[in-house]
Amino acid sequence: MAGSSFGENFRVTTWGESHGKAIGAVVDGVPAGIPLCEEDIQVFLDRRKPGTSSITTPRKEDDKVEILSGIFDGKTTGTPISLLVRNTSQHSSDYNEIASYYRPGHADYTYDQKYGFRDYRGGGRSSGRETIGRVCGGAIAAKVLKELGIEVYSYTSSIGPYSINPDTIDTTNIGKFPTGLPDKELNDLALTFLEECKAKKDSAGGSVVCTATGLPAGLGEPVFDKLDAQISKALFSIGAVKAVEFGDGLEASKSTGSENNDAFESVDGKIRKKTNHSGGVLGGLSDGSPLVVKAYFKPTPSISKPQQTVKQDGTPIEVEIKGRHDPIIVPRAVVVVESMVNIVLVDALLSGLGSRIDNLKKIYL
Amino acid sequence: MAGSSFGENFRVTTWGESHGKAIGAVVDGVPAGIPLCEEDIQVFLDRRKPGTSSITTPRKEDDKVEILSGIFDGKTTGTPISLLVRNTSQHSSDYNEIASYYRPGHADYTYDQKYGFRDYRGGGRSSGRETIGRVCGGAIAAKVLKELGIEVYSYTSSIGPYSINPDTIDTTNIGKFPTGLPDKELNDLALTFLEECKAKKDSAGGSVVCTATGLPAGLGEPVFDKLDAQISKALFSIGAVKAVEFGDGLEASKSTGSENNDAFESVDGKIRKKTNHSGGVLGGLSDGSPLVVKAYFKPTPSISKPQQTVKQDGTPIEVEIKGRHDPIIVPRAVVVVESMVNIVLVDALLSGLGSRIDNLKKIYL
Amino acid sequence: MAGSSFGENFRVTTWGESHGKAIGAVVDGVPAGIPLCEEDIQVFLDRRKPGTSSITTPRKEDDKVEILSGIFDGKTTGTPISLLVRNTSQHSSDYNEIASYYRPGHADYTYDQKYGFRDYRGGGRSSGRETIGRVCGGAIAAKVLKELGIEVYSYTSSIGPYSINPDTIDTTNIGKFPTGLPDKELNDLALTFLEECKAKKDSAGGSVVCTATGLPAGLGEPVFDKLDAQISKALFSIGAVKAVEFGDGLEASKSTGSENNDAFESVDGKIRKKTNHSGGVLGGLSDGSPLVVKAYFKPTPSISKPQQTVKQDGTPIEVEIKGRHDPIIVPRAVVVVESMVNIVLVDALLSGLGSRIDNLKKIYL
Amino acid sequence: MAGSSFGENFRVTTWGESHGKAIGAVVDGVPAGIPLCEEDIQVFLDRRKPGTSSITTPRKEDDKVEILSGIFDGKTTGTPISLLVRNTSQHSSDYNEIASYYRPGHADYTYDQKYGFRDYRGGGRSSGRETIGRVCGGAIAAKVLKELGIEVYSYTSSIGPYSINPDTIDTTNIGKFPTGLPDKELNDLALTFLEECKAKKDSAGGSVVCTATGLPAGLGEPVFDKLDAQISKALFSIGAVKAVEFGDGLEASKSTGSENNDAFESVDGKIRKKTNHSGGVLGGLSDGSPLVVKAYFKPTPSISKPQQTVKQDGTPIEVEIKGRHDPIIVPRAVVVVESMVNIVLVDALLSGLGSRIDNLKKIYL
Repeated sequence: MAGSSFGENFRVTTWGESHGKAIGAVVDGVPAGIPLCEEDIQVFLDRRKPGTSSITTPRKEDDKVEILSGIFDGKTTGTPISLLVRNTSQHSSDYNEIASYYRPGHADYTYDQKYGFRDYRGGGRSSGRETIGRVCGGAIAAKVLKELGIEVYSYTSSIGPYSINPDTIDTTNIGKFPTGLPDKELNDLALTFLEECKAKKDSAGGSVVCTATGLPAGLGEPVFDKLDAQISKALFSIGAVKAVEFGDGLEASKSTGSENNDAFESVDGKIRKKTNHSGGVLGGLSDGSPLVVKAYFKPTPSISKPQQTVKQDGTPIEVEIKGRHDPIIVPRAVVVVESMVNIVLVDALLSGLGSRIDNLKKIYL
Repeated sequence: MAGSSFGENFRVTTWGESHGKAIGAVVDGVPAGIPLCEEDIQVFLDRRKPGTSSITTPRKEDDKVEILSGIFDGKTTGTPISLLVRNTSQHSSDYNEIASYYRPGHADYTYDQKYGFRDYRGGGRSSGRETIGRVCGGAIAAKVLKELGIEVYSYTSSIGPYSINPDTIDTTNIGKFPTGLPDKELNDLALTFLEECKAKKDSAGGSVVCTATGLPAGLGEPVFDKLDAQISKALFSIGAVKAVEFGDGLEASKSTGSENNDAFESVDGKIRKKTNHSGGVLGGLSDGSPLVVKAYFKPTPSISKPQQTVKQDGTPIEVEIKGRHDPIIVPRAVVVVESMVNIVLVDALLSGLGSRIDNLKKIYL
Repeated sequence: MAGSSFGENFRVTTWGESHGKAIGAVVDGVPAGIPLCEEDIQVFLDRRKPGTSSITTPRKEDDKVEILSGIFDGKTTGTPISLLVRNTSQHSSDYNEIASYYRPGHADYTYDQKYGFRDYRGGGRSSGRETIGRVCGGAIAAKVLKELGIEVYSYTSSIGPYSINPDTIDTTNIGKFPTGLPDKELNDLALTFLEECKAKKDSAGGSVVCTATGLPAGLGEPVFDKLDAQISKALFSIGAVKAVEFGDGLEASKSTGSENNDAFESVDGKIRKKTNHSGGVLGGLSDGSPLVVKAYFKPTPSISKPQQTVKQDGTPIEVEIKGRHDPIIVPRAVVVVESMVNIVLVDALLSGLGSRIDNLKKIYL
Repeated sequence: MAGSSFGENFRVTTWGESHGKAIGAVVDGVPAGIPLCEEDIQVFLDRRKPGTSSITTPRKEDDKVEILSGIFDGKTTGTPISLLVRNTSQHSSDYNEIASYYRPGHADYTYDQKYGFRDYRGGGRSSGRETIGRVCGGAIAAKVLKELGIEVYSYTSSIGPYSINPDTIDTTNIGKFPTGLPDKELNDLALTFLEECKAKKDSAGGSVVCTATGLPAGLGEPVFDKLDAQISKALFSIGAVKAVEFGDGLEASKSTGSENNDAFESVDGKIRKKTNHSGGVLGGLSDGSPLVVKAYFKPTPSISKPQQTVKQDGTPIEVEIKGRHDPIIVPRAVVVVESMVNIVLVDALLSGLGSRIDNLKKIYL
């Protein structure tokens, strides 16, 4: 099936393998008239660039984006925007060895089962490099959101055992430290922990929080296309995500109605919620409070510690995964999470335009 | 936007409000030749029926389903199956009061923001009765799965503070006790806890586990339409779900790669995983192990304890929600979770048919 | 595959067989706030009712529509509108005979090839009664169009050899005569011709023109979802349509550029085309002139004249189709054509809302 | 809206403007295991190449395709195939003049109305160069069809007043002559006619027939996604198409049931139709006879003859369109028509895989 597109009215189609010629995306449904240049996208891509600290792969990925269509006189034209990032740093020979066996925690086995064979070089389409297309789409979505005064930010909320309380973070620390944790002390503890992981030839997991403010209330569709449902799909579609929660999330299930319900109040003639246990969604529609979602990532499956597995024919084999791997993917995944949330929000904004006949009259009459 | 359909090749479209004339669904894309009768669907609907214990609403809902199309000589014809459940137990007068204010934890405010007004009777489209259409779809999907030897079961995994370890449950206890917890002792503790909630005019939350066995490996699509991504959307589209996790879920994020990776082994010439931390999905495709997903529900927002809120015009008001409400929705949501998983699985099975050119040759040559 | 839905943002899902319990539709994506009652839809359904003249089947079909959801206080709520028409006049015994052979010009053979068997009673899902759901959707779409000052009308433009010039019709004659031809004299000639067909146990074809005025320019999407492309799909999806053309249509292919191009002019400060060879579409977008489309219908395949065909096992057989059939379906198809055009127009209006970032600002800021 | 994708299970997404950096397509849903190389696509692209005769634009377009993803070891992997064609022959200065006014018969005015402004260079996205992406998709679809023994061919069936009888063509003449008419004598007459058009600074239209043989019966979906409905949308989505017909098409509307119905017969134990008035479709499903569809094209709107039109502000202006234009687009459109039919057929083949539960058993059990 055609499964490489996301979104209905704002649609991102991605393509490309880790060690193919290039990676890219086509972003369709972008409203006309928004200023956009390659630098707008490059800023997002640079946030997922490896090689910037001891805890990311030493692999050098320049990942320079080229816009091939959809822009005229520096503005979006309403036609599809095609984005291209050439792969430049492939060491395919690193991967020849993995052609013959199934790496634990990877998609080697499942791809073979689905398609009969696979592009094994660097994980092919299941590589983390696949997220480049998502980030391109997210960067364009960010431009749309900015025009409407909507702000989205995201950060590492935990690494292994070290986690931060979302309610007390200093947002000025976002993006400041290598781990993505917006707290100097916690960042340093996590760095030490990750160095230990590396030394043990092992890897770690963590979580990312994404928050959106300035959303109009009523965004999303009430039944199957609830705003939280669409965001959860967007986040689970990122490789390695194993759990997603909104607002109090899992903890809400242990709470009582009287604790969990957010009371409404009116301040300066504007209705709003006093608290935000809901994470900004009620009945699948944005409720005017900040949208708060958290995605949990499993540890990087590529580890150089010896592991038991089998060859394609079932023969047992002990392997030590070679190559240039991140001991944790969370810091580089922060911008991917944000990008996917951006994409969902723009799609929801477009899809929601027709909810009232009065809106159509405003545009067409 | 048209947001009342779920699935691409197997598509369930639901409609209906709590206090309208009827609730129903249209299920399209059902393969021809499957035996199906109203009783097959009634069995599923009866599992969400209230009034069966002290912890569900005393509201009597007969919810008799009528099949209106798509069946001939007792078998599916490949054309859409329309299902109708008449609403018979509406006490609209119970709800007249809530027309004027916004219930905390409900979608009253967000519907008004999106549409300008709302059908306030019993929550209208945002009522739990909306799930009747989902369960109809899930019951039909179950028939498809059965033809292919796939089994799906689900149960309450926690209620408030009482939770069960999925690895040690006795599956013969599934569906046996009022709480849906497959353990007599835990059920009794949870019942007492729920009675206390009721006495305090409060409500509780909990969680549901759903497991699918017998799935072919390689099911799902690798990028945006990953099997877990689609299931998470399906589950978050159920009102009150606040978190979803697969396999070790949230805990995986605190684990290391060497702990979390599932080693492959070959047994009797068949490759399989030794453990199932992944919850049956690798790279978004089913990996041959049981699929294990858990959804967390917030406490029922309708409580008769006094709450602060506002009228539509912003005037503060203290309310005590009247009406016949469940102190917890989890036991009745078990079949809804299962239904949504069933629907995703059948859609994925249909969508995956064309993954290899050899499959097309098998069918068309 | 799920093929019973039409439209993206305004979506009509139909279901039901000729001799099943009922026929119906679910209409999703209707903007909130539009006055709508059953009578609005009944008026449309009555236009496709048989039994009103000598040239339609004497079969009595009351076709009373019931709205089951999506309306509150007499207005659309933005949630799906479910519509139900009970089948009341089935004579299934009329059709038992046709179970065993393949009627020429019908879908009996192709259904069997696709699904392995078929509901043969009255043609099952391939019956003309399937269009009831379309007309329900079209009636609702008409209400949306009316709010925006868009008018759509349609009429029989030819029956067998008798055809009318669209440029010279008297629109006050639309819907006046049994054939649907808006000309008394031509209607009478066509009636005589149809009586002769009936006498010969044969049937006739014809064509329908549909025109929409008041459309905003720029409606439609430029590449695959061109306005004319979507309308052509909508019209070819009506059984028996064999050709569709816009504006000068087929004749344009024999014209020259200087004849076929419509010059632009400015009148009272408003740009418009001097002529309308294009039929109101340029580059797939509405061009401000009336949209003009014509659909050609083949003769009714059910004729009582003896025909050669085969049984399911290939045995040759001569058949005379019994039952109550129209000698021509065109007069009853007029409202079906109009309904499908209505549906496409509303979907295009909704989908086009986000073409400019300024539109989003108008709605959300 | 996102309108640049075509197909559900086999999906072609195109992008690019005439005078942008490049044009391309992403083809998703291609089954794994099909041999594919750039040459396979180049062969199709070369069929739409201009500059090969006096009746096509002297503009030189090399249009070399590059495959960027989705292929491994010379075979499709099941992941999206990205295709890139760099624009190399843009003379944007030719078009600066047209920035200020609306060319008759072009999409200049309608784009401005929809988006507020437009990329006017060479028509931007509404240029005929947009079809490059379609042809890339069609070439890949052709490879799928070949694996299943399905053959598709197409040819010019008329140019201005000169038309050929599809029933008597010599298929060995297809693709032999510059006009695409598969008849030497008619080709020569048409060439003379086109030279006269050119001399008069005018242009001509024509038609294209496309035929598919070897299709399994039962292909397509019965209601809205009828095979003919989908093909008609595909063809009307090609700029300049003004009419589409299947089989006897328009003429069927003047026929009688006894003439138009195709009798079934059994030959060598195989059921087939004796005649093919239907053009290979019954009830929207392929009927085992060759699929025959015809698309009619209007004359090229770009003519150097003086024309009346207006500037963006409404000022009247007389224009003579400069630039390198084809006096007719039909010969180059033949491969575009074929490509779109290919795409629909592969999508229908994939979508039809699940029509019977037995098919699922064949693949999954």
